[in-house]
Amino acid sequence: MVVSRKISLKTGGLCDIINITPQIVKEVAETGINSGIAALFVAGSTAGLTTIEFESGLIDDFKNMWNRVIPKDIPYRHDQAWGEGNGFSHVRASLLGASLTIPFTNKALTLGTWQQIVLVDFDNRPRSREIIVQVIGE
Amino acid sequence: MVVSRKISLKTGGLCDIINITPQIVKEVAETGINSGIAALFVAGSTAGLTTIEFESGLIDDFKNMWNRVIPKDIPYRHDQAWGEGNGFSHVRASLLGASLTIPFTNKALTLGTWQQIVLVDFDNRPRSREIIVQVIGE
Amino acid sequence: MVVSRKISLKTGGLCDIINITPQIVKEVAETGINSGIAALFVAGSTAGLTTIEFESGLIDDFKNMWNRVIPKDIPYRHDQAWGEGNGFSHVRASLLGASLTIPFTNKALTLGTWQQIVLVDFDNRPRSREIIVQVIGE
Repeated sequence: MVVSRKISLKTGGLCDIINITPQIVKEVAETGINSGIAALFVAGSTAGLTTIEFESGLIDDFKNMWNRVIPKDIPYRHDQAWGEGNGFSHVRASLLGASLTIPFTNKALTLGTWQQIVLVDFDNRPRSREIIVQVIGE
Repeated sequence: MVVSRKISLKTGGLCDIINITPQIVKEVAETGINSGIAALFVAGSTAGLTTIEFESGLIDDFKNMWNRVIPKDIPYRHDQAWGEGNGFSHVRASLLGASLTIPFTNKALTLGTWQQIVLVDFDNRPRSREIIVQVIGE
Repeated sequence: MVVSRKISLKTGGLCDIINITPQIVKEVAETGINSGIAALFVAGSTAGLTTIEFESGLIDDFKNMWNRVIPKDIPYRHDQAWGEGNGFSHVRASLLGASLTIPFTNKALTLGTWQQIVLVDFDNRPRSREIIVQVIGE
């Protein structure tokens, strides 16, 4: 059994990290499927999905890591060609990844106690985002 | 058809890398499902899953990369707030990712010859870990 | 319903990035399945899968990031033991990841407008690669 759901949200850009766990829990519950997977996917080339303990200190630490590892202010050929200034956003998103698959049993996602699902928007401006929630199970 | 299995194991922390391929192969075989996917997920915010050629030199190289890219001994706001000293563990885990999905056909995982599935425990102390193995197929 | 497909291709190595979107679209369409997921997996320990806006400037930017973050010309224990000189390739592949799962609805992958699926071959020589396309749905 396959049920396709979608989450739409607004982001602030520049490594805006949004906790989408409550919405995913709700979407999975509403399918009525007991056991299976939620295959999450963010459409677009400048955002990614992962899990994190959603705590303000750690959110800062995660952003600081991106600023160190894939800096904003070094030359990107994408920026020279297209002038949008978001070359760093694309490279970060390709490293983090657009897909995340989470099992659930007895209608409950198998997350750890403090583990939350987050959308990370790397773009350099506010965006509207869609996350596809493909629920497969029985 | 969906079958939910679970693997429990003890880890040593500090980038302990454990080859879980034999357990995954066994769990998939025991479901009796011929063709499908094994959606693996590690519960918790300081561990991740990936594949690697499980060879001692490479295991060291992979650990050294983490020490270079996301160092242990720089300030983390998570550590200032919570005092557990594992801010680096959380950031590493969020970058590597908690989910890994592996297809299988004729009851055999589609891994390369030397490609092994590993749990990477980034925490700074020994932990008990659970990996969910959600097998979906027919 | 599960349908197993496979894509075979030749790569040039050294961070060769190949757009495999047209082949994946074709494989999914040929299954006749309306809605579900394509669970992609690359067999082997020196390649990975991700999505990117497939534009030449950005392809260069992504390669430059790998050269900075996981350099080719630092010592790797894998190289000392095995002499193949591709320690950096293995470490990069384990970080990027071998699996990528993409939902589809009404036979269309849920990619963003400019978002393409790519194989990244990190090895230091040309290779033959196989990507498993496990399609599950109804």
